[in-house]
Parts: sequence; structure tokens; C-alpha cells
Amino acid sequence: MGIFFERMALVGLGLIGGSLARAVKERKLVGEVLCLGRSEERLRRAQEMGIIDRYAVEMGTILGDVDLIVVATPVGVIVELIKKMVPLLKKGTIITDVGSVKKKIVEKVEGFIPESLYFVGGHPIAGTENSGYEASFSTLFEGRKCILTPVDTTHQKALEKMKELWVSVGSHVVCMDSNEHDKVFAAVSHLPHIIAYSMVNSLLTIEGFEKNILSFSAGGFKDFTRIAASHPVMWMDIALMNKEHLLPAIELFQEYLDELKEAIRREDATKLLDEFQKSKRFKELMK
Amino acid sequence: MGIFFERMALVGLGLIGGSLARAVKERKLVGEVLCLGRSEERLRRAQEMGIIDRYAVEMGTILGDVDLIVVATPVGVIVELIKKMVPLLKKGTIITDVGSVKKKIVEKVEGFIPESLYFVGGHPIAGTENSGYEASFSTLFEGRKCILTPVDTTHQKALEKMKELWVSVGSHVVCMDSNEHDKVFAAVSHLPHIIAYSMVNSLLTIEGFEKNILSFSAGGFKDFTRIAASHPVMWMDIALMNKEHLLPAIELFQEYLDELKEAIRREDATKLLDEFQKSKRFKELMK
Repeated sequence: MGIFFERMALVGLGLIGGSLARAVKERKLVGEVLCLGRSEERLRRAQEMGIIDRYAVEMGTILGDVDLIVVATPVGVIVELIKKMVPLLKKGTIITDVGSVKKKIVEKVEGFIPESLYFVGGHPIAGTENSGYEASFSTLFEGRKCILTPVDTTHQKALEKMKELWVSVGSHVVCMDSNEHDKVFAAVSHLPHIIAYSMVNSLLTIEGFEKNILSFSAGGFKDFTRIAASHPVMWMDIALMNKEHLLPAIELFQEYLDELKEAIRREDATKLLDEFQKSKRFKELMK
Repeated sequence: MGIFFERMALVGLGLIGGSLARAVKERKLVGEVLCLGRSEERLRRAQEMGIIDRYAVEMGTILGDVDLIVVATPVGVIVELIKKMVPLLKKGTIITDVGSVKKKIVEKVEGFIPESLYFVGGHPIAGTENSGYEASFSTLFEGRKCILTPVDTTHQKALEKMKELWVSVGSHVVCMDSNEHDKVFAAVSHLPHIIAYSMVNSLLTIEGFEKNILSFSAGGFKDFTRIAASHPVMWMDIALMNKEHLLPAIELFQEYLDELKEAIRREDATKLLDEFQKSKRFKELMK
């Protein structure tokens, strides 16, 4: 596999950024991996570990001569960062992001990006409950889907290059409308997180929870606490930016929960059994 | 380790019953493992596989000369089964169960059990989302807690023998009041299941869900579908029998979810971040 990009700059070095850096270096897909970050100490350590080649904490000093910029920060600051970097970039630079919310980002960036630069919205469906580049690894994207959300005006060559890059790190690329993406991920990802946060926090209020709840938590509950340990700022941003689709998903769930609660209250065994059997079939469909 | 019981009879041969049979046979803790079940074909296969030594589909033919009876059926039928078997049992037989709900079972059984028989309520905290003896394995109880819920009148020697048996298959035994047990497990186990069922079923109603939801489900969502694939009859029984503690747990969760939903609606970043950070701390406490 030859070199796809002479110089790639990561903006933000968390789990996704760090893993992408390791993946492209290991596969020699990029000549040089630069990184723009906030903490010089953390960036230096990442450089010493060989995850990145060079770094900077100021935008002006690093982004002017790169072919690809991957914005891998919490979704709340992506648009603002891209807006700031646009005047600094050379003609033909491809900009992409890895945010879990796409519509607002794509719409806003398409509104100001000049013709000389190419934007391709992206979302690698890869994450763990751990965050930070310390938890990153080069095979994170293998066998996972990566969604790209081009618009009518997206530069086709830039889109192709992004597809190739993600395929080369092991992902299956799926192109999708950004609004459709946000609707699907409100259901399969954002809703489960909001539910897990709510459940874990509601249990924190139970009397004597340390003795009783912590020591008996098993099975199902542990899955919830793992989900609810996800990066707080990242999820705050996601919840706010996908409000449009997340609120209806929460409300749909609330209706179902209320139905089950009422079935329990009136001891409606038939209804409960019917609902529980439905869920089981769902798992079978997924096999 | 010598033989604890000459003859143990399992009533119901699912994941827990099958695993207990394998565990006691492997460790030679029981002379003979009998099983009362409903499907002769399934029982014969279990016998051929060496999981049990003998079986019957009629109570009268198998329970009269055993030292220990372990009722390992869905919780909804445990009391009724014990009531039926009482007249058939020899003096000194110990009866235990493995149900996930304890208060109603313990109260009812203590109400009719004669002095000549010994009842000890039990709940091994061990399960997978799989059910049936085909999914059973002899190490299921290793390193797991097993809760016993004796009452003031529980025969001490019977309690000691049950403790020894569970310790011998690798469990940590914890004695607990049956009402307290039900309150704790409403929170850490029953609530997460009801939530998972509600979420999975609410998503089933989304248009085009097979194409969109199934193919993009990842991380968090998969945990939910796994939980929601648990044994429907078992969970129907649990929900109904622990209604007293489950309904308040659901309502507490609903309050928290509503709070988060309203924070998203009014875009209250501070509130969201605060709640999400709280959940993260919970995970750290569990380490």
C-alpha cells in the first residue's frame, strides 16, 4: 500500500485520533502524522511513544502544509475549529471529522468552506468506553463500519481518497445522508447512552448504595455502568447536537417503558410475556 | 471433598439447574443427581450427556427418597411446586430454590412447610443470557455470590449444609433478608432488564429498522439486545413477583430520564455535563 497522504494533521488526540495515527503509521499510509492539541505535555508524550511525528498547540504553526486534516475532538467544537483553520490551509487540503453527529456539522461547514478546500463528513463506528490516546490501538477500526456523509457538492476525488483511507485501516465504508445518520444513531447509540446515564445516576440515590448496590451488581447492570462511564464532554456535545432526533427517540422509549410499567402494575402476564418474547426475536434477527 | 448429599433432585433443568448438576457431579459432592422435568426427550438427552443420573416427569416417582431438592424453575411456579411435593418427601429433606425473587417465595413456603422438612431460600447470582441445560457448564458458580435468605426459624444445620454446598461449587455465600434482597435486585438486575426490553422494543417500531437499526447497531446497543434476549417466562415471573420493589425503581429511573430529557430540550450543558460526570465516578467506585 503506497502513501495516500504526505502529511496528515490530527486535531485532537483522543481514542479515535490516537488509534487512527497508529493505524496509518503502522500501514505506512501517511508520510508524516502531525497533531494539533491543547496539552503540550500530553502531545510530547505521544510523540515519544511514536504515535505522532510532530505536534503544536497553536493552529498557525502546523496546518499550513498538510494534505489531510482529521478533526477528532468532541463534536461541540468541530465546526468552530474548522472555521478557524480555513484561512490557514493550502489549496486542495481535505478536511474530515470523526464526530458522532453529522447533520449540523455538515450543514454548517458546507456553508462556509471555500471551493479550494474539500470537506467530507465522517463517523467511524468504533469506540470503547475508554478515552484518551493512552487507550488507543492500531486495530480499532478493523472490521468496523465507517460512515461518510457526502453532499451533492462534495468533491468526488476527496471522497474517494477518504474511502480508500478508511478501507485501508480495515473499515467498511458506508455513505449515508447526514440526517439519516443522525436519526439512526439517535436510536442505536445516543439513546442507550442517555438511558445508561439515567439509570446509573438514579441508583446512586438509593440508600446505602455502596454496600448494597455496588457489591451485588452483576450481569446487566455492569453493562450499563460501562456505557455510562463514557467521555462526559463528548456525550454532552452529542446530546445537544442531536437533540432533534434524540428527543423523539427518548420519548418513544418512555412510552414503551410506561407500557411495561403499567403491565407490571396491573399484573398483565400476557402483555409482559408478549413484549419479552418480541425482544428475544430481535436478538435472533441480529445474528 | 466428601459426599454432602446422597441424592439431590433438581426440579427444572435449565441453565442454573444444569450447571449445578455438572458442578456437583464433577466435584463428587452428591451421590446421585435426579431430575424432575417436563420434557422426557430433553431429560433423556441430559441423562445421555451425563448431566443427570435419573429423571422423571411425575413428582411421585422421584422425590420420595432424596436429601436435597433444588427448585430451579422460573420463579412463578416455585411455591406451587413446593406445596405439591411436601406430602411426598421423607423427613429431613432440605428444599432450596434458586429464584431471583425471594420475599414472596420465602414467606409463602414458610407458611406451609411442616417442621419435618427444611426450607432455605437461595439465589445464586450467576446467569448468562442463554438458557436451557445445553448452555450449562460446571464452573458457572465459581467466584460468584450466592445469596441465602434464612428466616428466624430456618433449621441451622440445613442452612450450614446449603452454605457448604455453594461454597464447594466456588461461590461466596451471603446471607440476607429476603425483602432487602428483592430491593437490591430490583435496582441492579430487574430494572436494567425492564429498561433493555423497553428500549429494544421501542426501536423495533422504527421505520426501516432492519436495514437501518440492525446494520448499525454497535457498542452500547448490543449490550441492551443481549440483556433483552433473556428468558421471557423467567423475566415475566420476576417482574410480577417483585412488583413491590420494581415499580418504585422504574419510577426513580423515569424521574432521572425526564430530568436529562428536559436538560437536553433546554440545552442545559452544565446540567448534562454534571450528570454524565457523576455516572463516570460510579464506574470508578466499582473498580
